[in-house]
Amino acid sequence: MRRISSSFLPPIALDARGATPMYQQLYEWFRRAILEGQLRPGQRVPSTRNLAAELKVSRIPISSAYEQLQAEGYFETFVGAGTCVARSIPGNTTKLEGRELRNPARTTPRQTGRRGAPREISRRAVAMRMPPQSWLDNMGAFRVSLPALDHFPVGVWSRLVNRHSRRQPRQLMAYGTAMGHLPFREAIAEYLGTVRAVRCDASQILVTTGSQLGLQLSAQVLLDADDPAWIEEPGYHGARHALMTAGARLIPVSVDSEGLDIEQGIRCAPKARAVYITPSHQYPLGWTMSATRRMMLLNWATRSGAWIIEDDYDSEYRFGGRPIASLQGLDSDARVIYIGTFNKVVFPSLRLGYVVIPRDLVPAFSTARDAADVFSSTLYQAVMTDFIREGHFARHIRRTRALYALRRAALVEAIQKHLGDKLQVVGAEAGMHLVALLPRGVSDVAIAKKAAQLGIAAQPLSSCCSKPPSRGGLILGYGGADARQIEDGVRKLASCI
Amino acid sequence: MRRISSSFLPPIALDARGATPMYQQLYEWFRRAILEGQLRPGQRVPSTRNLAAELKVSRIPISSAYEQLQAEGYFETFVGAGTCVARSIPGNTTKLEGRELRNPARTTPRQTGRRGAPREISRRAVAMRMPPQSWLDNMGAFRVSLPALDHFPVGVWSRLVNRHSRRQPRQLMAYGTAMGHLPFREAIAEYLGTVRAVRCDASQILVTTGSQLGLQLSAQVLLDADDPAWIEEPGYHGARHALMTAGARLIPVSVDSEGLDIEQGIRCAPKARAVYITPSHQYPLGWTMSATRRMMLLNWATRSGAWIIEDDYDSEYRFGGRPIASLQGLDSDARVIYIGTFNKVVFPSLRLGYVVIPRDLVPAFSTARDAADVFSSTLYQAVMTDFIREGHFARHIRRTRALYALRRAALVEAIQKHLGDKLQVVGAEAGMHLVALLPRGVSDVAIAKKAAQLGIAAQPLSSCCSKPPSRGGLILGYGGADARQIEDGVRKLASCI
Repeated sequence: MRRISSSFLPPIALDARGATPMYQQLYEWFRRAILEGQLRPGQRVPSTRNLAAELKVSRIPISSAYEQLQAEGYFETFVGAGTCVARSIPGNTTKLEGRELRNPARTTPRQTGRRGAPREISRRAVAMRMPPQSWLDNMGAFRVSLPALDHFPVGVWSRLVNRHSRRQPRQLMAYGTAMGHLPFREAIAEYLGTVRAVRCDASQILVTTGSQLGLQLSAQVLLDADDPAWIEEPGYHGARHALMTAGARLIPVSVDSEGLDIEQGIRCAPKARAVYITPSHQYPLGWTMSATRRMMLLNWATRSGAWIIEDDYDSEYRFGGRPIASLQGLDSDARVIYIGTFNKVVFPSLRLGYVVIPRDLVPAFSTARDAADVFSSTLYQAVMTDFIREGHFARHIRRTRALYALRRAALVEAIQKHLGDKLQVVGAEAGMHLVALLPRGVSDVAIAKKAAQLGIAAQPLSSCCSKPPSRGGLILGYGGADARQIEDGVRKLASCI
Repeated sequence: MRRISSSFLPPIALDARGATPMYQQLYEWFRRAILEGQLRPGQRVPSTRNLAAELKVSRIPISSAYEQLQAEGYFETFVGAGTCVARSIPGNTTKLEGRELRNPARTTPRQTGRRGAPREISRRAVAMRMPPQSWLDNMGAFRVSLPALDHFPVGVWSRLVNRHSRRQPRQLMAYGTAMGHLPFREAIAEYLGTVRAVRCDASQILVTTGSQLGLQLSAQVLLDADDPAWIEEPGYHGARHALMTAGARLIPVSVDSEGLDIEQGIRCAPKARAVYITPSHQYPLGWTMSATRRMMLLNWATRSGAWIIEDDYDSEYRFGGRPIASLQGLDSDARVIYIGTFNKVVFPSLRLGYVVIPRDLVPAFSTARDAADVFSSTLYQAVMTDFIREGHFARHIRRTRALYALRRAALVEAIQKHLGDKLQVVGAEAGMHLVALLPRGVSDVAIAKKAAQLGIAAQPLSSCCSKPPSRGGLILGYGGADARQIEDGVRKLASCI
């Protein structure tokens, strides 16, 4: 460590044997000295020759540092007048800022603002603030939407991943299109046509990262700030957040055992621009929308020019009877935007879903996707295409459908055994969760919090409501919990209620 | 094919030897007959026993079909009164709709609306409509942002992918957190601290799918509808779209060789809520923002309470001199949201990037990410962590930096040789593209279209402008083009100008 005082400069400390190259030490020293106000705007600095002589080092690192400082605008050079600190650098006013800022000893920089200027965020960000949801901390019983990961054919999947990763064509490493990988879109169109009676071709399929992005894009394309939009009450909080992001005005519409109360919706907001709906398996209550209500909704939408956002989550799983056909397949006026996901059937960290878009809206959705996040990662799109085409997907659905039917039955039985007088199970025999209603007057949030402390994820029904529901309830996922965890979980739940 | 006329029903055509199960044929026949109005609301249908006798089939498929029709609300059953078509099904008014809708012969369903009701989309979706950009159809020379994919260590990468895919722990298949995979965030924080002088720790890192999602989230969290936001002119269209999605009012601010003209910005919109900026390497012009301007910007933001969105794209590549330190590292008031991406250094279909967030904004960004698309796929996060930790990433940057320096030099030389009198190259020696200005009065769009027909991707400078620029130009990417393609591409370009 040599300490040298230059006639022009505060002491420079250089470490000739340190890991940091000499030019970098010099560059940083000068930059700091300028930012901290030790070197003033317009002040001359020594020539590289003089500084080299004073510091007893080669001119090369000094020249490199000077060039860098000049390129970044800290130094300026005039022919015949040598080099000086840029005169345009703000002077004393920044000294304090500079000092605090550039002090290298500060290892934990302040990162929350302090000057008193406002730190305003958007109204939507404020409105979306949520209280802590401790029931989401647990990944075991009864985490909603978690599938049976230990029954997933990891061997088959990783073979497919390896196949595509090893010989990934350059083209698939480059930019993909906003709409998605074409072979994947074709496979999705076929699958939905067969299994869900969705009427579309591949040109209408937009590949997403899951239903949430589908909801976001739908809201962005269809809704302006303050446009009224019907939303199910109780309903999916993710849909609420997506509509809020676009600035829409949410109109909660009640749900009963026939699905959304269309007449109430028309009474409250006849000119709604869009409706968010889960007709196959209402989230969270699990009811199926009746044919009558479906036709009422489609008729109203056709008359009023409203859009219908159909979220067909969990439709793969229906234990009694055949799957319910999609609303999209009934729609003759191209009013329905149909949203689905592979993340719950395959595994959540897959991040692949889809939107089926009316033909005339395809360009707007494609542009919105480009603006949102450009396109989906290609590897898993190619892998998932093979997973579908080679029959693994259908086989996995069949197996998990049988499994989830058993798990649902086990959960219902355990509830009857341990909590039969307190909990009432509602909804169709379908999906990966059920709702159990609590006695009137019992706070579901309080129980969910107690359960979370015992390691049980029981989501309160009221977290899906815009105002306190007349009866609280617990949303219990059974997809990811085996018989032992279910029995154990219900026992623990019983101790909380 | 048996055709049987029931006393109650229109003729039912069943195909006993067809691939479709009998119960499904029956279910679909009834559903269609109801939707088309051939069966009226309240009309009685034969008992399963009678229909089985008439159709001369077993009762089992008939019972299954009736159960399904009842579950979906097409039928209702009354004790003692038998089964009838649900009385709540809308009557004649839907006949026409039903007929068109359910006609199974229609293989190409109409999907653009026809009833005359408006098909309005949001104002932002209308504003984001773009004319066709034929220059984006080509993936060769001079596609902007395309890296040298043939120099990517595919072997190393696929080995890492295989490693993580084969023994993917259940936990990484389940839901990840909105902020991202912690080991990856730690690796990013270290990398940015060392290489970009960004001051942060892992708790401030939000993993994204690339800079575009970072821009979207920043706009959503920071800006309300009609809030003014400065944007560079010319500037990145992706940033413009992200800000428009949030409803912000864009204030174009000129750029010169010192970067954004801060004084102009303050004159035009002193109360702007946010600034979008590319200080290290202005997009598209390639200038570096001077130290003076940086400090002016930070001082203004601190005084006025504005946010700065720093897009540090391409900062890995700087051919003359050391990398320019980030603006974030100079900021002592936590006003800077710092955005970066791995998609250009690694490969575009990776879909991984990051945002460095001021501490007090972390909860709002996390909620916004959850509402946008929940979280990023985990596999590549784990793979990229190893790619960084095992030194492959640094090695790949070193190699491609040398390669891109050569490619840039080759492009500049070819331009001088073939177009020296017509094109003027501007910007610092950095990044993966350069801008070549055209003579005044020459339309860059016309030339870009001509070039696209020859298979050359030359993006017009005016596509980055809110109003026609005083001089047009071409944005030429050289990352993905080798020496031969560059020479060939410039020759073809010369033939267009």
